[in-house]
Amino acid sequence: MSQLPPVLERYRIEIDAELRSVLAERQSPLYDMMRYHFGWIDERGNPQQSLVGKALRPTLCLLACEAVGGEYRRALPAAAALELVHNYSLIHDDIQDDDRERRHRPTVWSIWGKPQAINAGTAMRILANIALLRLESHGVPLEKQWRIQRLLDETSLRLIEGQYLDISYESRFDITVSDYLRMIEGKTASLIACAMEVGALLGTDDEGLIESFRSIGRHIGLAFQIRDDLLGTWGNKEETGKPLASDIRRRKKTLPIAYALEKAQDGLKEELVNIYRNGALDDTAVTAVLRILEQTGAQTIAREMTEQFCRAASQTVGRLALVPSGRHDIEALVSFVLERSF
Amino acid sequence: MSQLPPVLERYRIEIDAELRSVLAERQSPLYDMMRYHFGWIDERGNPQQSLVGKALRPTLCLLACEAVGGEYRRALPAAAALELVHNYSLIHDDIQDDDRERRHRPTVWSIWGKPQAINAGTAMRILANIALLRLESHGVPLEKQWRIQRLLDETSLRLIEGQYLDISYESRFDITVSDYLRMIEGKTASLIACAMEVGALLGTDDEGLIESFRSIGRHIGLAFQIRDDLLGTWGNKEETGKPLASDIRRRKKTLPIAYALEKAQDGLKEELVNIYRNGALDDTAVTAVLRILEQTGAQTIAREMTEQFCRAASQTVGRLALVPSGRHDIEALVSFVLERSF
Repeated sequence: MSQLPPVLERYRIEIDAELRSVLAERQSPLYDMMRYHFGWIDERGNPQQSLVGKALRPTLCLLACEAVGGEYRRALPAAAALELVHNYSLIHDDIQDDDRERRHRPTVWSIWGKPQAINAGTAMRILANIALLRLESHGVPLEKQWRIQRLLDETSLRLIEGQYLDISYESRFDITVSDYLRMIEGKTASLIACAMEVGALLGTDDEGLIESFRSIGRHIGLAFQIRDDLLGTWGNKEETGKPLASDIRRRKKTLPIAYALEKAQDGLKEELVNIYRNGALDDTAVTAVLRILEQTGAQTIAREMTEQFCRAASQTVGRLALVPSGRHDIEALVSFVLERSF
Repeated sequence: MSQLPPVLERYRIEIDAELRSVLAERQSPLYDMMRYHFGWIDERGNPQQSLVGKALRPTLCLLACEAVGGEYRRALPAAAALELVHNYSLIHDDIQDDDRERRHRPTVWSIWGKPQAINAGTAMRILANIALLRLESHGVPLEKQWRIQRLLDETSLRLIEGQYLDISYESRFDITVSDYLRMIEGKTASLIACAMEVGALLGTDDEGLIESFRSIGRHIGLAFQIRDDLLGTWGNKEETGKPLASDIRRRKKTLPIAYALEKAQDGLKEELVNIYRNGALDDTAVTAVLRILEQTGAQTIAREMTEQFCRAASQTVGRLALVPSGRHDIEALVSFVLERSF
């Protein structure tokens, strides 16, 4: 993986340590699947030293906490919980999409089979709740813990509702940009919004500020997903760790595809639908889809929308009274979301 | 399904009403899969009136609450949460075991596909947490709600650990009765123990009494699972709603099989292992397995162990100072567990 920006490296070791201690006393081999997924062991159980993934959600949580004047260490249990929710969804997502590789490594199901990977994912989601219990030893009042728990549960439902739409769109050709946005609000933006809301909540009692961070997180989440679509369609295999145009091969209704399905003219829409309807998406089909996307200007639109959501996030950040270094860090992270190549 | 005993009918409508209100305002089609699973709608979304399943866990929760002198209505949110945890595990279990039918109806995955059924199951597990929030409006103090939440989360991990073992045993032939018991402690006994503990906890502050109900529930759970194994091996298809000897066909290491693998002599163990190793379990193979089980006395042992765990539950019930009608009801339920044919 390419170098992470410093803002995503800062809390990395502490987030990892918190995750490790949540899992520390869990002995059943069930939890080895989770340790493998996080890159702590290889598939035979030997220790590995790789820190995999970007840890975006926990980092945003801790950044939000610091930016409102809080002590980020207090939010570490919540940061770990957010990373557990995100990673459970990845384990299930790989099963659902039949993906054999993630982060340059075989996926959990491709090693242990789908039945056991379902168990690993669901248990990891429950561990997220248990991770939150550690907030108590950081002096977080019970009412606030309870509120965070409810927020994480409702957010998880939004995430699964988005996941439901994502899968149901695979066999549909009438998807509009508005349908697409509804799907990613759930699948991606909800958890990133939750991460920043929870971080702010653990650093301040100012409800207006907390709500603003929710909005910043939502905009970052929408931008992050559209950038993900750009990388899943035109990204570099070595950097993304995914096959070229993988989102097209997987029949995903990404923003570029939704835009083309809604706006393409002069027979291009019909051509696109025919390609998807006529069986396998081989290299020839993928090349044809990429040509149609170019002719409709879908890539340009996706870039513009990413910029637009990043700008909305930055504008909210600019309006708030924040710790100056915190403001700077969040802006660095927004820049990463806008320009990342992995 | 055969007639349920009156003790399992008593709270049935109220449990169902509580479950319906937990799901009432959830609009995404994701939740229609759950409504289908509960028998409220058919697969096209038309209302159905069938109450499916035995609602054993919520009933045990409410019975425990009443038996210690509590008001059972106060425990209804917890009863609903327990039923949601149990039913999420059934939805995932059917995916994992490739079972196309449950309770005489097609399973969720066989209609909507495995990817969406994974979503339905995980979302149902999260709804269990949300169902617990309704305890607040019944005047349950926040500390007790928090304790129940933690208990349900830890129990869910035990359940999945048991599920993990159950699947991992399918390809193993060295399973002993002790391995089997460890598996069902997690897969079945943990949630039934939790149900009675939570019910008692909502009816009393007497920690000794609460702990006793946990133990009663554990013994009922162990007996329930071994009875389930008896029905899954020798049960009547019309009553159980499962194919004849379905547990053998599914390569499950039930108590009879674990017992035979550990104790069978005179070459019977080798014969048993060879049958399982030599590919498909067709009718001839199933008949041979049933003969080996008979020759090792596995059915008798399973009956004896069911009686033994039921007796242990009854003895604890007998020792406690309980509301007389509550004692009677729990004993009626223990009798049902011992003798049920579905």
